Amino acid sequence: MDAYLRNAWYVAAWSGEISHTPLGRRLLDEPVVFYRRSDGTVTALQDRCPHRFVPLSLGKIDGDNIVCGYHGLRFDGNGTCIDHRCNDMLRADAKLRHYPVEERYGAIWIWMGQETPNKDLIPDCGFLVDPARTMLFDQTLVKANYMLEIDNLLDLSHLDYVHLSTISAGSFTDGVFKTWQDDAGVHTTWWTEDCVIPPQFVPYLVGAERVDQWADSTWKAPGIVYIHSGGTRCKQPRESGYWIEQCHCVTPETATTTHYFWGIARPNMGEPPEVSAFARQRLRQAFISEDATMLEAQQRAMKSTDFWAERPIVLPEDGGAVRARRTLAKLIRAEQERALGVAVAS
Amino acid sequence: MDAYLRNAWYVAAWSGEISHTPLGRRLLDEPVVFYRRSDGTVTALQDRCPHRFVPLSLGKIDGDNIVCGYHGLRFDGNGTCIDHRCNDMLRADAKLRHYPVEERYGAIWIWMGQETPNKDLIPDCGFLVDPARTMLFDQTLVKANYMLEIDNLLDLSHLDYVHLSTISAGSFTDGVFKTWQDDAGVHTTWWTEDCVIPPQFVPYLVGAERVDQWADSTWKAPGIVYIHSGGTRCKQPRESGYWIEQCHCVTPETATTTHYFWGIARPNMGEPPEVSAFARQRLRQAFISEDATMLEAQQRAMKSTDFWAERPIVLPEDGGAVRARRTLAKLIRAEQERALGVAVAS
Amino acid sequence: MDAYLRNAWYVAAWSGEISHTPLGRRLLDEPVVFYRRSDGTVTALQDRCPHRFVPLSLGKIDGDNIVCGYHGLRFDGNGTCIDHRCNDMLRADAKLRHYPVEERYGAIWIWMGQETPNKDLIPDCGFLVDPARTMLFDQTLVKANYMLEIDNLLDLSHLDYVHLSTISAGSFTDGVFKTWQDDAGVHTTWWTEDCVIPPQFVPYLVGAERVDQWADSTWKAPGIVYIHSGGTRCKQPRESGYWIEQCHCVTPETATTTHYFWGIARPNMGEPPEVSAFARQRLRQAFISEDATMLEAQQRAMKSTDFWAERPIVLPEDGGAVRARRTLAKLIRAEQERALGVAVAS
Repeated sequence: MDAYLRNAWYVAAWSGEISHTPLGRRLLDEPVVFYRRSDGTVTALQDRCPHRFVPLSLGKIDGDNIVCGYHGLRFDGNGTCIDHRCNDMLRADAKLRHYPVEERYGAIWIWMGQETPNKDLIPDCGFLVDPARTMLFDQTLVKANYMLEIDNLLDLSHLDYVHLSTISAGSFTDGVFKTWQDDAGVHTTWWTEDCVIPPQFVPYLVGAERVDQWADSTWKAPGIVYIHSGGTRCKQPRESGYWIEQCHCVTPETATTTHYFWGIARPNMGEPPEVSAFARQRLRQAFISEDATMLEAQQRAMKSTDFWAERPIVLPEDGGAVRARRTLAKLIRAEQERALGVAVAS
Repeated sequence: MDAYLRNAWYVAAWSGEISHTPLGRRLLDEPVVFYRRSDGTVTALQDRCPHRFVPLSLGKIDGDNIVCGYHGLRFDGNGTCIDHRCNDMLRADAKLRHYPVEERYGAIWIWMGQETPNKDLIPDCGFLVDPARTMLFDQTLVKANYMLEIDNLLDLSHLDYVHLSTISAGSFTDGVFKTWQDDAGVHTTWWTEDCVIPPQFVPYLVGAERVDQWADSTWKAPGIVYIHSGGTRCKQPRESGYWIEQCHCVTPETATTTHYFWGIARPNMGEPPEVSAFARQRLRQAFISEDATMLEAQQRAMKSTDFWAERPIVLPEDGGAVRARRTLAKLIRAEQERALGVAVAS
Repeated sequence: MDAYLRNAWYVAAWSGEISHTPLGRRLLDEPVVFYRRSDGTVTALQDRCPHRFVPLSLGKIDGDNIVCGYHGLRFDGNGTCIDHRCNDMLRADAKLRHYPVEERYGAIWIWMGQETPNKDLIPDCGFLVDPARTMLFDQTLVKANYMLEIDNLLDLSHLDYVHLSTISAGSFTDGVFKTWQDDAGVHTTWWTEDCVIPPQFVPYLVGAERVDQWADSTWKAPGIVYIHSGGTRCKQPRESGYWIEQCHCVTPETATTTHYFWGIARPNMGEPPEVSAFARQRLRQAFISEDATMLEAQQRAMKSTDFWAERPIVLPEDGGAVRARRTLAKLIRAEQERALGVAVAS
């Protein structure tokens, strides 16, 4: 699957990454440069000077404009060349593609397609800006196709194997697994009663040795997976326990590399900085040293990015990932047919 | 020559490399995982989980079984899936290929082909387990086609150039070279009378300044080269001198990378550990820093792995290597014809 | 443009690089080995042994001959095999290609084509051996097509952007740009009056705050760009100022990598060694950290080495580079037609 769904909102960066210094980032195999204008709003432009092709992100920002670092060609925040060396004819060719962006929920969302963007379609991540929570924003680059990351987030049965030393006590998958699809997306859930408390709940469910535990994943096309997970003393209501809300944002860099962002909202327990630092580090170990290591080995073991060509066996726990892959393939096909002006076959 | 002879025994590892922790190794461009069962016998399985393709060598051993490190799929030592999540239909597809292996002479021998293996065909390396000798087992990975390593071992005229600082005094090739082929394999021999003593004989032929020197190489298809080499005081019988028996095991990893193992049996002189350590280090310098550096430069200078396409000039000393290449090409062709059900042209 | 002009003189090395130890260097995608014979003259031979293809530069020099480091094959300074193992028939195939070379102006010039070389065509760089000057010779390898380096040297408008911190005060391009072509080559010139003094002139035009500044570039096909640059107190004659003569030598290694040599003649001011060292270091920063970084980013941003396929917009300052590209393309086409025995279309 080397094609991407282009007419959709992707997370391009966390808000804190974008400043008055240009940031170059490849998204869906296109080079994009981001910067803030003097009013603080974010601009996203094609990161390639039409004169000598170098990334504009090697240049600098001057007010609301970006200036190429090679010969100083100057573009405004809409990508229009405003250089005195360009005459009117040149100026038309010298236009940089301008990408619609929206800053919301602590993230920069980008629309890579040619169709008119609808900001109402940006997935709701309101919990990431809830002042009643403690937030954690982090990210990495994974050398694997983005769908492998989404598969991973929709099949949490890997917790008992990949994350045994970090965020699982090994009996997460003793429970009940369900998967279904509705208008909100593809869902997979785990509910496990009376299991050994996993390490991340120990500080919050003091004295408990066994807990009821859950994790609910929801994928929204193309690249968001919410995970609501928690634990509670056995037979107590979920609300009495400890739980976190996670937004995993998966954005293709190329066919075989993926920008992977995670935003995590935890209960605000007034924890000291070292606890926050430890929580961040434990997730980095889980999502980078453990998950990404496995996904990158998986990608290297594949002949290409064509998952089905590898003839995988399909287990019941793959139900969510298979639904997501089918849904996305259908959306991409529909988008390509729209681009060709063809009616989508029902 | 990107094809391999598959119905043959190759050295996959030294015995000491295989334990209850899985070892992944690519052989003839196939991923294989090795481990010992609880009774100490060695298992070799396809190193790829049929579910998500990751190497099983990233997982762990549980008794006689191997458990995938990603989602915990479980296989017995024959490669049969014994996971509760696999129903009968899935189980047939989830079977890992199981490779015949035999542990003998301190090495793990593997049979990569589909024909029935015959253990009588494992080359005799009894000298590697002779308690009357001092043994040295070592190995490296060479970034060159495996036939370049075999060429190297069958044309020892390189000793006076490549190994001048380590295991040659520069007059090894002043002597007589012979090459021939018989049922035992392809042979090349050097016999040089009255030459300067090379450094490795000095501690054993104390006081000698000049020696008679010999080295006899025998290649057995596809990947074993025995070398019997030694020196003796001039005009004395070989038996009165110092000599070593070497088994060089050359196993393709890919078309352009090679597992190279060497087992060396020296006279047991009750030498102290530092002498053994020095002998090991000197051979590492000769076989890695000197030989492999040259073979890797040779591979980089070639357009592909097709040796003859480079139009080499052929010297008399190439006689052994040329015979080995022709013999192996014939064996590979015959094997491919058998696989196609075609009679081998006589 | 993956083709090269072959019947032309290229700088292969600075004189000081060639000694009695062999130097291997890839030029126009051919491996070449250089060494000095006992009389001090330089030999350039094909850097590939016809026996086993390894670079002869891994071997050693014995008198006027070169000896392969693998099996000791021996060649004289004309590339003729003089090994006792080669019979007459072998010897013809075992001949190494011998390249015409000329040592002049502190450089080794090589002729890579099959046509008869004419030493009168070696570009005049007499200023590089003028005892009245202080000389600086240096070089690097740039991971970009060689024409990108020549473009760079013919469009010095990049000084105000790429070199703002090293050799420009930012107003170099406020002046007048001209470009034209004549029998001497392609010329581009800048003349800027009354501008802020750039850092490299400060020690020489003591007390001056503003200067008149110039830089005159001349490209000679295929790979030489002379740059005569300097500054003088405002409205004073050029001769009263500070000026340097530069010879930039651009030689393809492969289609996407380039040997870049620079020889710089400055007025001999009897400067102490630390000043010379600083001048060398400042140019390394400008030509490597600044220029090469940009050219390599440019190459990575291109799909191939086909510049025009990227559909660049062309600014007035590109006039010199465009002329050079057209001229070189014409010369290459003519050379290829001569090789085919076809008359060049006028």
